[in-house]
Amino acid sequence: MLIDGRTEVIAHLGWPTHAFKAPMIYNPYFESAGINAVVVPMGCKPENFAALLKSLFTAENVRGALVTMPHKVSVVGLMDKVSPAVKVAGSCNAVRRDGDGRLVGDMFDGEGFVRGLSRKGFRVQGARALVIGCGGVGSAIAASLAQAGVGELALHDTQERSAESLAQRLKMTYPATSVVPGSTDPAGFSLVVNATPLGMNPGDPLPLDVNRLDPDAFVGEVVMKSELTPLLAAARQRGCAVQVGADMLFEMIPAYLEFFGLPGTTAEHLRSVARLQY
Amino acid sequence: MLIDGRTEVIAHLGWPTHAFKAPMIYNPYFESAGINAVVVPMGCKPENFAALLKSLFTAENVRGALVTMPHKVSVVGLMDKVSPAVKVAGSCNAVRRDGDGRLVGDMFDGEGFVRGLSRKGFRVQGARALVIGCGGVGSAIAASLAQAGVGELALHDTQERSAESLAQRLKMTYPATSVVPGSTDPAGFSLVVNATPLGMNPGDPLPLDVNRLDPDAFVGEVVMKSELTPLLAAARQRGCAVQVGADMLFEMIPAYLEFFGLPGTTAEHLRSVARLQY
Repeated sequence: MLIDGRTEVIAHLGWPTHAFKAPMIYNPYFESAGINAVVVPMGCKPENFAALLKSLFTAENVRGALVTMPHKVSVVGLMDKVSPAVKVAGSCNAVRRDGDGRLVGDMFDGEGFVRGLSRKGFRVQGARALVIGCGGVGSAIAASLAQAGVGELALHDTQERSAESLAQRLKMTYPATSVVPGSTDPAGFSLVVNATPLGMNPGDPLPLDVNRLDPDAFVGEVVMKSELTPLLAAARQRGCAVQVGADMLFEMIPAYLEFFGLPGTTAEHLRSVARLQY
Repeated sequence: MLIDGRTEVIAHLGWPTHAFKAPMIYNPYFESAGINAVVVPMGCKPENFAALLKSLFTAENVRGALVTMPHKVSVVGLMDKVSPAVKVAGSCNAVRRDGDGRLVGDMFDGEGFVRGLSRKGFRVQGARALVIGCGGVGSAIAASLAQAGVGELALHDTQERSAESLAQRLKMTYPATSVVPGSTDPAGFSLVVNATPLGMNPGDPLPLDVNRLDPDAFVGEVVMKSELTPLLAAARQRGCAVQVGADMLFEMIPAYLEFFGLPGTTAEHLRSVARLQY
């Protein structure tokens, strides 16, 4: 990768930055595809975020920003325009300028999750889905499932108000979708999603009762690992098909590339050139 | 070069950015030396500069900034602390944060020029020097010559007030240096410096009367080329030793690296790894 005076910059804003993965996926891809752009991490504390984001977008060659914790919610209020996914998720992790200089926010976590399901042959349309964890990523997945025509969407969060609030936001944007309260009992669901952080740390309890999983259910995970989390290992033992968290990550990047107006590619190619260490 | 969540950023601020050279020198060096840092161009118009500079320095992993046209003068007013070279030059092209979060500005154009002279065996101490062009880079070279103990310093600029103003600034910081008015006549000077842009474009007139050069004079150039400019070609024909503009560039970078607190190297190594296209 040779950065020169014509290189375009995508700022990757979050704090802390140490665990950032995007630079090691996007930059090797840009290099492999001859795209003169670079993803650059910037460690930004909450009190400095609004000023930094706005200033960065005054720079001529800043093409966009990837926004992660702890700014994914606060960034929404800085946007001039947001997508339906942002409205439902209440969070945003991609920002670009439009032709008029307005800041446009979008969020493709859910899109990545659903693209991964489709690629694995799972048909979302008409399915009964349970989403456990109704924070930013769970909300984004719920929005994308609704967008893709899910039959019934059950929501659960240990914070009951999170699930209720998500249900309300979904009803505003996707009034035709049947949204119901869920629990940690996955029985009867053909799609079960862990959108909680449980599984990130050794010794975490399982997010749901795996003994109640239907053996033909599909179980997906947001914990960003390429190997099986304890939940996915248990699900697979029951015979379930599974999707690892890293799949969501790679599947969403083509959508981000498109959003930034950069040449796209497949999740497979991204995975083959990425230089991630798990 | 693999950018990851621990990479430190040096923002290269200017406008337009197309002719930037620093990324193609610093970044190959960082890669060759295993330094996890990256120089990133940011095209910034004057009206946005102050806000962008200040915001960038709120980012945890922004280690510094390289500042170039059109911000080299305006940046001085944004600094909490500046070096003597900045005071004399009235311009600044390197910024870092000190331990208290204050912005510190420095300027190593002149230092690079003088380091290059020393490496070529020219002894500045006691020399009679003529500096033609008293803008930012000429002022910086004049300051470094004064710092290095030049015997007499003659200044010339087509804008007479520029030369007078530089003479005054020099007298404040280097009261012992003899500063006198110069002209385009280089006769009697052992060091002659073109610090004007003449030589950048084909057809430019020569900045001085080459027929009056002492054959044992040393002639240095700031026009950033690695080959001989028409001035240097003529000087060499008269028997003069010369220094090309690109030498100043490579010689100053070790000083910048030190300023940013990064591991240093030699101008030769920088030149050997650089990926510049002239």
